[in-house]
Amino acid sequence: MKRMYLLAALALLIAGTGLSAQNTLPKAMTTYEAGTYPSETNVLRAEYPRVDPVSRKAYFKFLLPLAHTVTVTIGNDEYKGTKDIDGVWTIETAPLVVGFHYYFVNVDGARLTDPNSNSYFGYTANAGGIEVPEGPEGDYYRFNKDVPHGQIRSLNYYSEINGTYRHVNVYVPASYEQGKKRYPVLYLLHGMGENENGWVNQGYVNFILDNLIASGEAVEMIVVVMSGDIRTTPTIRTVPGKTVSDIYVNELVPFIDKTFRTLADREHRAMAGLSRGGSQTTATVLTNHNIDKFAWMATLSGLGGVNKDNVATIFDGAFADPAAFNRQMRLFHISWGTEEGARFPGSVDALRAQGINCVTYISEGTAHEWLTWRRGFRDLATKLFRK
Amino acid sequence: MKRMYLLAALALLIAGTGLSAQNTLPKAMTTYEAGTYPSETNVLRAEYPRVDPVSRKAYFKFLLPLAHTVTVTIGNDEYKGTKDIDGVWTIETAPLVVGFHYYFVNVDGARLTDPNSNSYFGYTANAGGIEVPEGPEGDYYRFNKDVPHGQIRSLNYYSEINGTYRHVNVYVPASYEQGKKRYPVLYLLHGMGENENGWVNQGYVNFILDNLIASGEAVEMIVVVMSGDIRTTPTIRTVPGKTVSDIYVNELVPFIDKTFRTLADREHRAMAGLSRGGSQTTATVLTNHNIDKFAWMATLSGLGGVNKDNVATIFDGAFADPAAFNRQMRLFHISWGTEEGARFPGSVDALRAQGINCVTYISEGTAHEWLTWRRGFRDLATKLFRK
Repeated sequence: MKRMYLLAALALLIAGTGLSAQNTLPKAMTTYEAGTYPSETNVLRAEYPRVDPVSRKAYFKFLLPLAHTVTVTIGNDEYKGTKDIDGVWTIETAPLVVGFHYYFVNVDGARLTDPNSNSYFGYTANAGGIEVPEGPEGDYYRFNKDVPHGQIRSLNYYSEINGTYRHVNVYVPASYEQGKKRYPVLYLLHGMGENENGWVNQGYVNFILDNLIASGEAVEMIVVVMSGDIRTTPTIRTVPGKTVSDIYVNELVPFIDKTFRTLADREHRAMAGLSRGGSQTTATVLTNHNIDKFAWMATLSGLGGVNKDNVATIFDGAFADPAAFNRQMRLFHISWGTEEGARFPGSVDALRAQGINCVTYISEGTAHEWLTWRRGFRDLATKLFRK
Repeated sequence: MKRMYLLAALALLIAGTGLSAQNTLPKAMTTYEAGTYPSETNVLRAEYPRVDPVSRKAYFKFLLPLAHTVTVTIGNDEYKGTKDIDGVWTIETAPLVVGFHYYFVNVDGARLTDPNSNSYFGYTANAGGIEVPEGPEGDYYRFNKDVPHGQIRSLNYYSEINGTYRHVNVYVPASYEQGKKRYPVLYLLHGMGENENGWVNQGYVNFILDNLIASGEAVEMIVVVMSGDIRTTPTIRTVPGKTVSDIYVNELVPFIDKTFRTLADREHRAMAGLSRGGSQTTATVLTNHNIDKFAWMATLSGLGGVNKDNVATIFDGAFADPAAFNRQMRLFHISWGTEEGARFPGSVDALRAQGINCVTYISEGTAHEWLTWRRGFRDLATKLFRK
């Protein structure tokens, strides 16, 4: 027990200085599992968490000699840790799906964040992230030094509806900076508990588009990656009676069209979103009757709940007249993962029985997670703004 | 004790669902200290940490019934928590300096991060942040809806020296997007344990420049906010024998001059950095003999160790011939806070005794912290690139 308190004092010292003290750490902290390496999402020089690219397992270690239980939560799964004599907790996961996962470390039941991971905003929290690497099949979302690169523009604009400024990320393709061309625009939304940085930080939307544009598989486009939430400040806590749809249509679209060289008509404007962002997309374009502003639409794991009984009335009757819908909507792209259950394919069946044209993409072996959305976005990007 | 375990189980449930469960939280978690409000650095809808704008104290709460000690570290200060009967730990700080501070939560000696705070990279870790508000005197670093706004461009470029890609943030002023003008460029570095996002996320360099440019107090300029570290990946852990100075001068400057409408000569190129970034600035411009590429230079809490005995030899003799130095260097700006001790004013005394021209700015009442650097940057920005 004395040893444990000494180690706790040591850990305090390390925490207090903010310095790395690898040489004085317990052996388990510097004994790495064979075949593993630090997750690419780690902060500079952090050895843990580590991943095994073959087994696809992740390993976490925390020096917490006094803790009763230490677990790691990844999605719906909680992995229990075991403690050694030095107070080092080791957590080994089951094989994970390749791609990105949020995680939290739970100490005696309290959800906390690992300072050794870069931060990813998920579950309305500052979460850690782990990336289980794909082989070359993942190259489409990786930086490629041999292709031209676009930019992410980070902007703030004042929103009268929100009562404060809002932050937005805008991808512009490589040719934008030097040229004079105008481009079509995709408005792209994150899921519940995430924010406008997700499609960049863990979705790699910029790398996916750089690669697809270079290979000619996608049309050059601007992508506006926006927030699906109402921004709060110390004085602005909620904005009752206003919707994010109003912000997009009345404020954000005009701001983007004023600021960038866009093709500012419905034929060159798309909206898409993942999970709750898919619901916000159908709410904005269909329920709130903005189909005159968006001729292309997509949901990524975001269109559940359509069935034969409600297909003619849902979204304020947007599908009541299939011929009219099909004439106006140039692309209705619907994607999901095979491990997400029946609600997405069920919705598509109901749409097709109603005569609604839609294009689907199904990600093999993935659930409600970022690999589903990277893949879905890739497929969507190849089909947007085609003649 | 039973009550504690029940609460721990409840906390696990909350963590597991990722949902807010305010109504079922212990009373202390929803009983807010009078006159306090959530820090503006909190994640969406998080009630803690809170700040009292009058006393300038911060308040933290964590539900950790089984923990032995819970503390919050802010800089060099560690604040102890007290636990109530429900297992809620409350931490009250001493009065803090206004401005931004990193923090960690330490549970039984282990340094962890609060998921309720936005993430700020400091101490080579994903840290929490708290902002103690200034009154109107802080308006210079706040978003102002009545002035034009520049953009932060987020780019990745391939570095042969680093062997992988590197991320860089580039501020361009509001006029850049629509115009044809060319601009002078400031290269700006963060401190040790921070990264290239710090000057944007907590330095507010974009808002400071938007405001100063709008009022005519600063010349329009591009600011390249770069990393002072060698990027590591699972396969690239260190790059021996190479320096970040080489990356700046041989790779980054040419990349920026190729990508942006810059005025690509020494008369329109400056370098500055805070803390270790100041050392990297003097190393790059002076020790590594790149004064032919930078005519303007600044250190923010970053020039210690110059004295009468070494002033003629330090930085490979850059100050040996004061007349030559003064002729070449258009501005040598040196800033620090009054609470940082004697090393910075001591260095300036030695420089001036040697006949070196320098301009100083001293931040009243602040230490080695971001308010010192926001203020120092503001003063610097008003003096850069003047005829």
